Amino acid sequence: MIAAVTGLPFDDIRRLLAGLPGPDEAARAAVAARDAVLTKPAGSLVRLEDIAAWMAAWQGRSTPTMQKPLVAVFAANHGIASRGVSAFPPAVTRQMVANFSTGGAAINQICKAYGLGLKVFELALDQPTPDIVVEDAFDEKSCAATIAYGMEAVAGGIDLLCLGEMGIANTTVAAAIFHALYGGAPEDWVGRGTGVDDAGLKRKADAVDAAVARVGRGGDPLDVLRRFGGREIAAMAGAILAARMERVPVIVDGFVTTAAAAVLHAVKPSAIDHCLFAHRSAEAAHGRALERLGKTPLLDLGMRLGEGSGAALAAGIVKAALAVHNGMATFAEAGVAGKGD
Amino acid sequence: MIAAVTGLPFDDIRRLLAGLPGPDEAARAAVAARDAVLTKPAGSLVRLEDIAAWMAAWQGRSTPTMQKPLVAVFAANHGIASRGVSAFPPAVTRQMVANFSTGGAAINQICKAYGLGLKVFELALDQPTPDIVVEDAFDEKSCAATIAYGMEAVAGGIDLLCLGEMGIANTTVAAAIFHALYGGAPEDWVGRGTGVDDAGLKRKADAVDAAVARVGRGGDPLDVLRRFGGREIAAMAGAILAARMERVPVIVDGFVTTAAAAVLHAVKPSAIDHCLFAHRSAEAAHGRALERLGKTPLLDLGMRLGEGSGAALAAGIVKAALAVHNGMATFAEAGVAGKGD
Repeated sequence: MIAAVTGLPFDDIRRLLAGLPGPDEAARAAVAARDAVLTKPAGSLVRLEDIAAWMAAWQGRSTPTMQKPLVAVFAANHGIASRGVSAFPPAVTRQMVANFSTGGAAINQICKAYGLGLKVFELALDQPTPDIVVEDAFDEKSCAATIAYGMEAVAGGIDLLCLGEMGIANTTVAAAIFHALYGGAPEDWVGRGTGVDDAGLKRKADAVDAAVARVGRGGDPLDVLRRFGGREIAAMAGAILAARMERVPVIVDGFVTTAAAAVLHAVKPSAIDHCLFAHRSAEAAHGRALERLGKTPLLDLGMRLGEGSGAALAAGIVKAALAVHNGMATFAEAGVAGKGD
Repeated sequence: MIAAVTGLPFDDIRRLLAGLPGPDEAARAAVAARDAVLTKPAGSLVRLEDIAAWMAAWQGRSTPTMQKPLVAVFAANHGIASRGVSAFPPAVTRQMVANFSTGGAAINQICKAYGLGLKVFELALDQPTPDIVVEDAFDEKSCAATIAYGMEAVAGGIDLLCLGEMGIANTTVAAAIFHALYGGAPEDWVGRGTGVDDAGLKRKADAVDAAVARVGRGGDPLDVLRRFGGREIAAMAGAILAARMERVPVIVDGFVTTAAAAVLHAVKPSAIDHCLFAHRSAEAAHGRALERLGKTPLLDLGMRLGEGSGAALAAGIVKAALAVHNGMATFAEAGVAGKGD
């Protein structure tokens, strides 16, 4: 269900973006200072060390925690599915939401394996956004309301937010966003998604081409979001913003989730500094998008499922990184000789 | 402590290697068949799917399990440390073993985070193997005894074995093994290990050069192991062999652990088919060794700690992969439409 329209217009969102809090450099320095005396060669765990420092900086806490991690999956439908751009019928979005509820999907298992909470946010599944080849996905008011709805994912004292999505045809929508933001050819931004065949891939590129031709390239990023949607992408953009305000680090999943981050990045690059990119999706355009964002993903396992599955796997690495940082003995505590002693 | 010499000579080890059991192809096929009907696009989790199939094939079980995973860390000392090849003094090996016992090291925290058992095997820390520039590490009898000792890691019904090591100067020994097995220049196989400086790196390359010049290149792989050691590398080779016999899949950690696998691979390439390579170490030569073995590591996080830390992180991914495979609903169970429905 979409939340009642809150009246938050784009101006308020722009104001939020202009005044985002920065990292807590004192917390980051505290992590670096402790890291330097832990019983391991300095710098020997590189990305794990970076993760501990990043969590501390964005939680604003010198001892970073992962007591209440949440995977938030946003689900929506898309009018453009009628153009045959996906290997699966649109009914699957709702069916998979039911599968999430009964614990049968991949994301449920990963959450159980690592002790992550899971919430699924349904976004008016019976009201797909219009076919973006012919019509805008939103007016400004409903786009802003959906962004505001996404902000609700950050609640209940969570200390890590993993973002994921479900929505048949949403890789087509994400491709349109990337093409509008970054240019290139439509073919640069479309891939096989859930496994569309050659003819479907061609329909997908054509749809992206037509949608972006209708709207034009290089417009205001929030307007790009409004024109292409989808509801889950707008909501995830809201969740990323709310997480920043509430000092909750974010793990971004794959291709579609990255589109939400890319919209905010296009408004203000530092707006996604509190985001860790979980993995490089098998959707080839994802690597291209990550390059534009200047982000190095944590994992590269050839995954292309969505549902937040890559973000949840990355949360497993974060769990280990914090356990290492918070739990290890120092050289002095353990009576271990340092380098060159 | 080294186990009492068992009298197992190299001939027995060669006999073991000649008769290794293969994968259970029926179990692998059962996993593939189930995977095809799980509620996700076919092939959308690539490496996670591969892991489930690999575990099943080598456990010989159509439902792969991870009920009793063990991280086995083998610790040893090396005479070659006296040549100034490491940034840390040899006393650190024993100090870190004590740190493992009291739960203060990185590996302890990762094991706790993922529910992995941890056992540390001390290999005569007060008897470093001789300086391999001037003398062989072992005679055949003690090398075989150490291999046999390593086999003891596979006990108590474990269903996954993660191998790691601790031993000041052991990246020098591993480099000598790789140089002897694969040729190239000594510089191709040495790196900064725990963080040796430029002069130390030069001493390390010189030591590898001299040790391999003494022995000659391209000899019998078990003889390469005997001549260079170290005790932890021989023991890990034994553990890999025993795991194969007992149908326990193995996760190989970084540069030094890979040297143990490389010795077996050089005798018989299929001898390490039951091994998953956890990560690409920051030790540049590790990537080169993995290429020679034709193995693609699971993670690439710039780590260079040892202790089995990369293997334990990879076990976290294996945990998620098995949870996904064993726990997901099928399309029929969940009432989700399939591709093209």
